[in-house]
Amino acid sequence: MTGDTSDGRATVRPTLDDVARRAGVSAATASRALGDHPHVAEATRARVREAAEELDYVASPEAARLAGGPTGRVAVLVPHPSRWFFGELLEGLEGELRGADLDLVLFRVGGPEERTAFFARLPARRKVDAVVVLAFAVDEAEHERLASLGVAVVAAGGRVASYPSVGIDDHRAGRQAMDHLLHLGHRRIGMIAVEDAGQLAPDPDGRTSAWRAALGDAGIEPDDELLVTVPWGGEGGADGMARLLGLRTPPTAVFAHDDETALGAVRTLRRAGLRVPGDLSVIGVDDHPLAALTDLTTVAQPVREQGRRAGQMVLAALRGGLTERVPPAETLPTRLVLRGTTAPPGAPR
Amino acid sequence: MTGDTSDGRATVRPTLDDVARRAGVSAATASRALGDHPHVAEATRARVREAAEELDYVASPEAARLAGGPTGRVAVLVPHPSRWFFGELLEGLEGELRGADLDLVLFRVGGPEERTAFFARLPARRKVDAVVVLAFAVDEAEHERLASLGVAVVAAGGRVASYPSVGIDDHRAGRQAMDHLLHLGHRRIGMIAVEDAGQLAPDPDGRTSAWRAALGDAGIEPDDELLVTVPWGGEGGADGMARLLGLRTPPTAVFAHDDETALGAVRTLRRAGLRVPGDLSVIGVDDHPLAALTDLTTVAQPVREQGRRAGQMVLAALRGGLTERVPPAETLPTRLVLRGTTAPPGAPR
Repeated sequence: MTGDTSDGRATVRPTLDDVARRAGVSAATASRALGDHPHVAEATRARVREAAEELDYVASPEAARLAGGPTGRVAVLVPHPSRWFFGELLEGLEGELRGADLDLVLFRVGGPEERTAFFARLPARRKVDAVVVLAFAVDEAEHERLASLGVAVVAAGGRVASYPSVGIDDHRAGRQAMDHLLHLGHRRIGMIAVEDAGQLAPDPDGRTSAWRAALGDAGIEPDDELLVTVPWGGEGGADGMARLLGLRTPPTAVFAHDDETALGAVRTLRRAGLRVPGDLSVIGVDDHPLAALTDLTTVAQPVREQGRRAGQMVLAALRGGLTERVPPAETLPTRLVLRGTTAPPGAPR
Repeated sequence: MTGDTSDGRATVRPTLDDVARRAGVSAATASRALGDHPHVAEATRARVREAAEELDYVASPEAARLAGGPTGRVAVLVPHPSRWFFGELLEGLEGELRGADLDLVLFRVGGPEERTAFFARLPARRKVDAVVVLAFAVDEAEHERLASLGVAVVAAGGRVASYPSVGIDDHRAGRQAMDHLLHLGHRRIGMIAVEDAGQLAPDPDGRTSAWRAALGDAGIEPDDELLVTVPWGGEGGADGMARLLGLRTPPTAVFAHDDETALGAVRTLRRAGLRVPGDLSVIGVDDHPLAALTDLTTVAQPVREQGRRAGQMVLAALRGGLTERVPPAETLPTRLVLRGTTAPPGAPR
């Protein structure tokens, strides 16, 4: 069987017969084993799956549909289930899927090894009707794997490849944060950006490019020593702030990639005996529930709503309502939430 | 077919033939429809499931095993996926299940309606090999539903019914918090307890009973006006603290049910112009990542490890390694983490 991969190369795909031969079983048994039917010995199933993986076998979507019909399950790929942002996406998504009587199968794909293992096994499994990718970029090979499944793929928490998606405009959110600091009169503004090992953010540069663009538009030459990149989270934010405080001329305000990183920055400032916002202003992005508790100024994004919309896109796709040619890329609005960590710059120290 | 339910009543259970008759299909078709086999028209499947639900039909475990074999899936019931505690449990659990090539199917059971719907549909579905209950108490009827499935049930985040479980000792964690405050010299200690609508905590009274017992052991008569109960979370904690501040004689220290509730209490104190810990000490339970960032003294519990252990219990049960007679109830240790929100009581105000 030949076919075109998404990058245009013509390839020869292994057939079910190839898999059956390699596993030493009949084609019918191989089909049942891959189709997850009962009445297949576990050892046989394992052997057939191994053969399918070795050959990189992918059932044609039509054949798979004929063999199996809908499963009633949707795979959700989550880098970090324990983080608030992903939990909120999951909550929104789960509600929509449950409403349509679809089960949510959770796959954590946090580290590089987990990702490799997941995508390698994906085609042989075929146990879901759709896949939702939560806020991480898929590479070319992963995209091909997903495409070869012949099931709907939807992304939430940002644009991913060319899938139907829902997210915010990271650049615009960054501009809202930066413009607020500029309006307050800050000129020397630092940025704590985030580099998450093992996870490629869908738009890693959106917020950073906003820092640069906002400064440029205000006639300020961006000073690259004011841009520090740290691992995601509070400890990263704390370290990033310490680096900024170590500069010959520290900033008077800091835009942190997200609220948890921002709270880390605030801790460093408090430990250094500096007042927030008296000595230094801090702003984040998210409106994490603890931002309200810690009086953190932020740019709010509707995370649970992104999960809900992704669920609705899955349902539309399963009903045939989404055309593949013009996948929707929905952008939900963000808004500035003024609290107690930003103020005009104080007297020079 | 007759059987004993878990409370010893002998009941007459509807048979597969009863379901088939009611749905107007053959017994073979009814079996396939309930067993989630392919090649069953969706309308037929729906009709059979409806009949099974109406009759409260439960396939006998043996019959189900014969019909379907293992599904390779584990259902995880989560009250609030977006909260840090449940996300951590999920992360730990997911890793163990993935290592054994089991899929994690997530069911949110936050509100009373979701719970009713979930448990009502449970028996007719039979799509999982095991069920993990994350930190909520199941009532008698729900317990019977779970038992009737004939699959392993494991609880994480606390004891639930008589299932194998892993959790912490809430009373002991509470004593660690209270004893710390008492050692510092506090005598008038408030407690912000949590009442979560729609969720019965496995041991709702463990931490509250510790407040009472610790005071009693120190020769202090517990003053019930110092015990306030609020909805879970930061806003609840903020409200609870405001109520305590409104007392004729406010406490000099507060033990909050968990870190997020404690952070809400700290916000109220800051807004009221009070110093923490100068004017009032605050301690929580969890060691939430933001506790480190906000310098909150707390009693740490190993949450992800509880998820991991629950996953291992599922695997042991599926291998037949857990006897039903003596289900393990594992208790993981908690420990006091000293930070900046507790200190000896200051001068009388």
